[in-house]
Amino acid sequence: MQELIKKADTLIEALPYMKEFYNQTVVIKYGGNAMVNPEIMASVLEDITLLKYVGVNPVLVHGGGPAISQNLDQLGIKTKFHRGLRVTTKEIMEVVEQTLVGKVNSQIVSLANQAGVDAVGLSGVDSNLIQAKKHHLAKQFDLGYVGDVKRINPQLLKTVIENDYLPIIAPIGVGKHGASYNINSDSVAGEIAAALEAEKLILLTNVEGILSDPEDEDSLISRLKTSEVEEMIAQDQIVGGMIPKVKSCVNALQKGVNRTHILDGRVDHALLLEIFTDHGIGSMITK
Amino acid sequence: MQELIKKADTLIEALPYMKEFYNQTVVIKYGGNAMVNPEIMASVLEDITLLKYVGVNPVLVHGGGPAISQNLDQLGIKTKFHRGLRVTTKEIMEVVEQTLVGKVNSQIVSLANQAGVDAVGLSGVDSNLIQAKKHHLAKQFDLGYVGDVKRINPQLLKTVIENDYLPIIAPIGVGKHGASYNINSDSVAGEIAAALEAEKLILLTNVEGILSDPEDEDSLISRLKTSEVEEMIAQDQIVGGMIPKVKSCVNALQKGVNRTHILDGRVDHALLLEIFTDHGIGSMITK
Amino acid sequence: MQELIKKADTLIEALPYMKEFYNQTVVIKYGGNAMVNPEIMASVLEDITLLKYVGVNPVLVHGGGPAISQNLDQLGIKTKFHRGLRVTTKEIMEVVEQTLVGKVNSQIVSLANQAGVDAVGLSGVDSNLIQAKKHHLAKQFDLGYVGDVKRINPQLLKTVIENDYLPIIAPIGVGKHGASYNINSDSVAGEIAAALEAEKLILLTNVEGILSDPEDEDSLISRLKTSEVEEMIAQDQIVGGMIPKVKSCVNALQKGVNRTHILDGRVDHALLLEIFTDHGIGSMITK
Amino acid sequence: MQELIKKADTLIEALPYMKEFYNQTVVIKYGGNAMVNPEIMASVLEDITLLKYVGVNPVLVHGGGPAISQNLDQLGIKTKFHRGLRVTTKEIMEVVEQTLVGKVNSQIVSLANQAGVDAVGLSGVDSNLIQAKKHHLAKQFDLGYVGDVKRINPQLLKTVIENDYLPIIAPIGVGKHGASYNINSDSVAGEIAAALEAEKLILLTNVEGILSDPEDEDSLISRLKTSEVEEMIAQDQIVGGMIPKVKSCVNALQKGVNRTHILDGRVDHALLLEIFTDHGIGSMITK
Amino acid sequence: MQELIKKADTLIEALPYMKEFYNQTVVIKYGGNAMVNPEIMASVLEDITLLKYVGVNPVLVHGGGPAISQNLDQLGIKTKFHRGLRVTTKEIMEVVEQTLVGKVNSQIVSLANQAGVDAVGLSGVDSNLIQAKKHHLAKQFDLGYVGDVKRINPQLLKTVIENDYLPIIAPIGVGKHGASYNINSDSVAGEIAAALEAEKLILLTNVEGILSDPEDEDSLISRLKTSEVEEMIAQDQIVGGMIPKVKSCVNALQKGVNRTHILDGRVDHALLLEIFTDHGIGSMITK
Amino acid sequence: MQELIKKADTLIEALPYMKEFYNQTVVIKYGGNAMVNPEIMASVLEDITLLKYVGVNPVLVHGGGPAISQNLDQLGIKTKFHRGLRVTTKEIMEVVEQTLVGKVNSQIVSLANQAGVDAVGLSGVDSNLIQAKKHHLAKQFDLGYVGDVKRINPQLLKTVIENDYLPIIAPIGVGKHGASYNINSDSVAGEIAAALEAEKLILLTNVEGILSDPEDEDSLISRLKTSEVEEMIAQDQIVGGMIPKVKSCVNALQKGVNRTHILDGRVDHALLLEIFTDHGIGSMITK
Repeated sequence: MQELIKKADTLIEALPYMKEFYNQTVVIKYGGNAMVNPEIMASVLEDITLLKYVGVNPVLVHGGGPAISQNLDQLGIKTKFHRGLRVTTKEIMEVVEQTLVGKVNSQIVSLANQAGVDAVGLSGVDSNLIQAKKHHLAKQFDLGYVGDVKRINPQLLKTVIENDYLPIIAPIGVGKHGASYNINSDSVAGEIAAALEAEKLILLTNVEGILSDPEDEDSLISRLKTSEVEEMIAQDQIVGGMIPKVKSCVNALQKGVNRTHILDGRVDHALLLEIFTDHGIGSMITK
Repeated sequence: MQELIKKADTLIEALPYMKEFYNQTVVIKYGGNAMVNPEIMASVLEDITLLKYVGVNPVLVHGGGPAISQNLDQLGIKTKFHRGLRVTTKEIMEVVEQTLVGKVNSQIVSLANQAGVDAVGLSGVDSNLIQAKKHHLAKQFDLGYVGDVKRINPQLLKTVIENDYLPIIAPIGVGKHGASYNINSDSVAGEIAAALEAEKLILLTNVEGILSDPEDEDSLISRLKTSEVEEMIAQDQIVGGMIPKVKSCVNALQKGVNRTHILDGRVDHALLLEIFTDHGIGSMITK
Repeated sequence: MQELIKKADTLIEALPYMKEFYNQTVVIKYGGNAMVNPEIMASVLEDITLLKYVGVNPVLVHGGGPAISQNLDQLGIKTKFHRGLRVTTKEIMEVVEQTLVGKVNSQIVSLANQAGVDAVGLSGVDSNLIQAKKHHLAKQFDLGYVGDVKRINPQLLKTVIENDYLPIIAPIGVGKHGASYNINSDSVAGEIAAALEAEKLILLTNVEGILSDPEDEDSLISRLKTSEVEEMIAQDQIVGGMIPKVKSCVNALQKGVNRTHILDGRVDHALLLEIFTDHGIGSMITK
Repeated sequence: MQELIKKADTLIEALPYMKEFYNQTVVIKYGGNAMVNPEIMASVLEDITLLKYVGVNPVLVHGGGPAISQNLDQLGIKTKFHRGLRVTTKEIMEVVEQTLVGKVNSQIVSLANQAGVDAVGLSGVDSNLIQAKKHHLAKQFDLGYVGDVKRINPQLLKTVIENDYLPIIAPIGVGKHGASYNINSDSVAGEIAAALEAEKLILLTNVEGILSDPEDEDSLISRLKTSEVEEMIAQDQIVGGMIPKVKSCVNALQKGVNRTHILDGRVDHALLLEIFTDHGIGSMITK
Repeated sequence: MQELIKKADTLIEALPYMKEFYNQTVVIKYGGNAMVNPEIMASVLEDITLLKYVGVNPVLVHGGGPAISQNLDQLGIKTKFHRGLRVTTKEIMEVVEQTLVGKVNSQIVSLANQAGVDAVGLSGVDSNLIQAKKHHLAKQFDLGYVGDVKRINPQLLKTVIENDYLPIIAPIGVGKHGASYNINSDSVAGEIAAALEAEKLILLTNVEGILSDPEDEDSLISRLKTSEVEEMIAQDQIVGGMIPKVKSCVNALQKGVNRTHILDGRVDHALLLEIFTDHGIGSMITK
Repeated sequence: MQELIKKADTLIEALPYMKEFYNQTVVIKYGGNAMVNPEIMASVLEDITLLKYVGVNPVLVHGGGPAISQNLDQLGIKTKFHRGLRVTTKEIMEVVEQTLVGKVNSQIVSLANQAGVDAVGLSGVDSNLIQAKKHHLAKQFDLGYVGDVKRINPQLLKTVIENDYLPIIAPIGVGKHGASYNINSDSVAGEIAAALEAEKLILLTNVEGILSDPEDEDSLISRLKTSEVEEMIAQDQIVGGMIPKVKSCVNALQKGVNRTHILDGRVDHALLLEIFTDHGIGSMITK
């Protein structure tokens, strides 16, 4: 009995956070290698279902790099990377879209429905949700169908949310003449958070957060300001795949999102811990 | 950290119950001596606030016997009881109404607002919410302004709920020519549950539940059917103040309420334990 | 037959005023000794019911001084007054709230329902309708639980009006930590009129209106401007209980109410005469 | 002052009737020679405006015989009558429609707007409001464009009422191939009352009501039942132009209208007297 | 089969125009001698019905000069013209209103209903839709009941459009004391287009459009700007009945209408050609 | 000019059909080899866009057999067919879903958006739109992930249609434990038509329609009744891939769809010809 009462106490402890986030939009990006693990995926979706039931409006954006690589391998297609970006030919783009939309997105939607929330899978092609432009490198190296977000057309998303569905979004953008583009999912999540005037942007990844020394897991920076970010990049304190994440956060903050977080998606219930406890985990970037 | 994750697990355990009771009405009666303790009261209201945030529509009906007795004492008014019911003269009825509406109800509404839910205090007089008729005893003993529910007029209550307020109801009914009547609060709760087609009726009291041997706290009957109740009353297994509670449950069940419960309000978070765990506490009566 | 036709003529004469006040809010304060007379009360409520039917939105605020004094007497509690204000201990405040909410308000609601309008009784505690702060005197004399309006939270009131109920409001405010405060009802009426952007504020009292010579009933001032009021107070032309009434009118006018009136509630149908005839009665204060 | 109070009393006397007819539809037919008098017309429209303001939904159907005759005279067109019905050639029908729609209806709408109610003029042609069929006599005498109501299409009328306009209807019906038909306005009023499920149908005419002896104004029959009507017609107690009025009432009653009245439109405020006093005037036919 | 496919191609060609005018308001004035021809009338109404079905909101204003003259002739009333405007006595105004409202408007509404669109006939008298002031000539020559638009009261029109009816408007205005005025229908159409913030104003007439040489049908000016109009009038290039048309266009453009057109109503489907093809016909005036 | 007028005539000819299908739902299945041709695809989507603009609610279901085969070939996966159905292992099902959802559906959505209609791609996984059960053969041959429709959950579809989007649906169903199933798209289209209470079901294919002699293109059966179908199958008049089409039609008719059609999708504007002309093409099956 005492144990039960302790559990009830835990529910009550969450109450102030429920009040704070009631009817607020939270955009969550989930990706990377952590996504490969079906158990973590199920746990993340359970957390999101709970958010939905306590009155938060979550929006999920996913990545899918490992699944894309696996599919390209099966087809025997070789890919080159240039500065961390995949050179994406028309043929590769088709595989990317099939994988992200027809495999990864479908699977997440199916898992979410099993978790008990009404989920709808969307890609940027649906009602031109994500309008893309070609990503241009300084030296005019042609990356093919790699894109940047040109504009978010949030009407469909708003309809989906108002009708109480959970939108799950594949980071495919649509460019001129209807061509599909592969866009970095952190960047898509940031732009969508901005377009929806979200309260929070949460990037779930498979590292602890921003580390002042990437080799040292104990060097986590819990809080930083947008003003500090540029210098940290210049000084190589923020490097590699962390750079687009941090930039997406800064972009979202500048466009009106209130708080942004980079969390370790491998931690059980990382989302709930961040939202429903005072003990923030990972790194929080604010204005 | 492990502790935090355990807390998150607890939230997730509650998810199936949130789904089950989403947008359902639960009528809760809180009264008796347990109400005298301000800490328990605060705890009950916190539980109700949580229910509100996770999408349940709670409705609270309260009693107030001890406060009435105290006020009558201060005024030096003596009262007689007949078969457990207070003989209620016009003068006494005024004290009853002032106490229930102006003191007990106001205090609970104030506490609820502090707990973070928008509460509205109502009595049966408001928009003729509870229409009363005089309670008649077999032998025509005149109990004065003791009433029974004649009809619930639920429109005001529905307006209050739809606009996201928590209604808190004092068990005063209004009879012919606008006279106020004191009505048993268990009975009011049951009739309101029926009129609102509630999913659950929960009577919080200060005993464990229905005991097969009232002297023995270990003799709790966890589940019983309406069909068993009459015999138990006839055989004096259900006695005293438990009789109107049990009858109110049976009445509500016959009028379409799905489940009814008699719980020990002294247990911390009794409401949450009943609604959010499989480990039902107290006694449940079903059809 | 001629008499009937004359009656019909009277209805038609009211038509221009019906047009003028269609869908306008009129806040009416009714209090003082006049309230003790049940016949006058019934007549006032009949007038208000008529207003409701011809498309006006009346809101009623009541006082209750005499009933409070009577209840304190019965309990043998002595009270002191300081500059016309009752020194209100915790114990007295409980009696005040019980009397205003549980007795006076309940009775008026019941009478209004009998008059055929759906009335809902409210106090400032309901959904924090009237937020209070402690009333501070210059010389820091402690008046106890005497309050001033800090803020009106009109959402609940708007919901009640839009759903076609008549709100009847007891002048209890809620302060820090949920403590109840007794507030001057004229002042509450003025602030509520301001918060609802009312067309009219009408204070029903038991004198003719503002008299240039308080001893002479024929010295009624029919119209005055806010600019004239301060001087009249300074010159002791407006004195005693008339001061808070006049100040409440000035306050309401400054916050956007269009017209304010101080009427003699003892005159039959004073409300209808003021609203439905050109022959204004009592004193009108305008900007 | 006493006079003013007496006037207020008159308003209060009307209150029970306001409650009774709140949000009810009342179809009023105004016609005949009484319509020629602009003062009576203005008075009738003032009454209707008052009804609108106190929450009743009036619908006005008018006739126009005298105006038609006058216009035909000016054009030097001779008309024959057959059993009280005008033999209506195509040429005459054009004059009928121009007169009813372009003169009588326009004038009434203009007067109603001046009386302060938003009026909209309609004829049966608008959105096929009144669908007509040719009126057939037993002996196959061809009356030309004299019609009967085949079907009322009430949607436009409902839209007009819901948007708070007063509909004023000319008794023109539309038949096959869009041909216009002249229909008896009493009959149109009865069918519209039925289609709108009106509470009351009131036929304003220029006699006292149904007289048991048409020569004797004192022989007014105040109340009669549909069952009595047929016999009275058979026995020539109801004769001439009173027959279609009475039949329209009976028809409306059979189709669900609650009460029907034949009133003397020459009496000042006949409508208000009927609706707002117990002293019913004219004849009432009920089921 | 090839022919059928070609027809389908034609539907597809109209698609871009459907997209462009979806949910846009188009005010069409139809008048003059062209209106006398029932076949052209039927064809115009069919075009308007099609516009309604493909999501455009058409509003029709009509004239009626020839019908008025014919009716005056039949009555043997002589009329004088002063500078192209009919001197309109009270007697003549009655004939004008009867003709426009009771004959022309009724006929067009009936034809429109037969074409399959739900039409409602309105004049400026309905809900004071067109408020008129007396038209004053420089030299104070009294034209009688000839008016100008003082103000459009578009609420009724908006209600009619939102409820999916086609409004058909007779150019009668209502002045002081409810007097009716005859107003130039081009001018009424322009003001209504402005009040409804229409996308297009189309004046259908029985000439080709604006001719640089009125004698030469080949001298059509396809496009002109408001700035060019004044000079063309000064230089007698725009003369006679074309002047009020052009001025109405300029007025509408200045008040926010996007494009205005003067088209030859005798051309089959002139409306569809203008709206659904690139091959604009007639003259277009833009800002 | 004459040509333009002829085009306008064509628009007018379509008007009666626009009236007939206004606000009606039409479910269209497009598939087979015809889908491989991008020009035909673009033409079909243009037709559907036009339907949307003239007030019809089209819903598109697509197939994708050839694209699936092509993808399987590229991966070097061999597939067996059993009685015309692909034996679908888990590995093959993944390819099926990726192809239908991530390639075919995305492409059609992108083309539809380019055609100017707001399209949203859905699969049966979204909000459990298509609930599947395993397809069982008589002899218990295991076909793997080949499914039948168990239940359509149309709420998401209704939301999408009400918000004016065009839904484009991939025939993937979701079974127990979230497993995806490949379902015959004709069958999906029929069930969706039934669930939406569609007016019409149109199966676009790449044959003329139902041929009484499959070898003879001139043997088209224009109309047949559900009662004739069974016999024609028994007598091998309806064979092969035509059987599921015909059965889907019969099923839809039995569940309340009004008319069903099997059309030759290779004919330009086959949809428009069917809906907007009297010259029905292909075969129509009715009850």
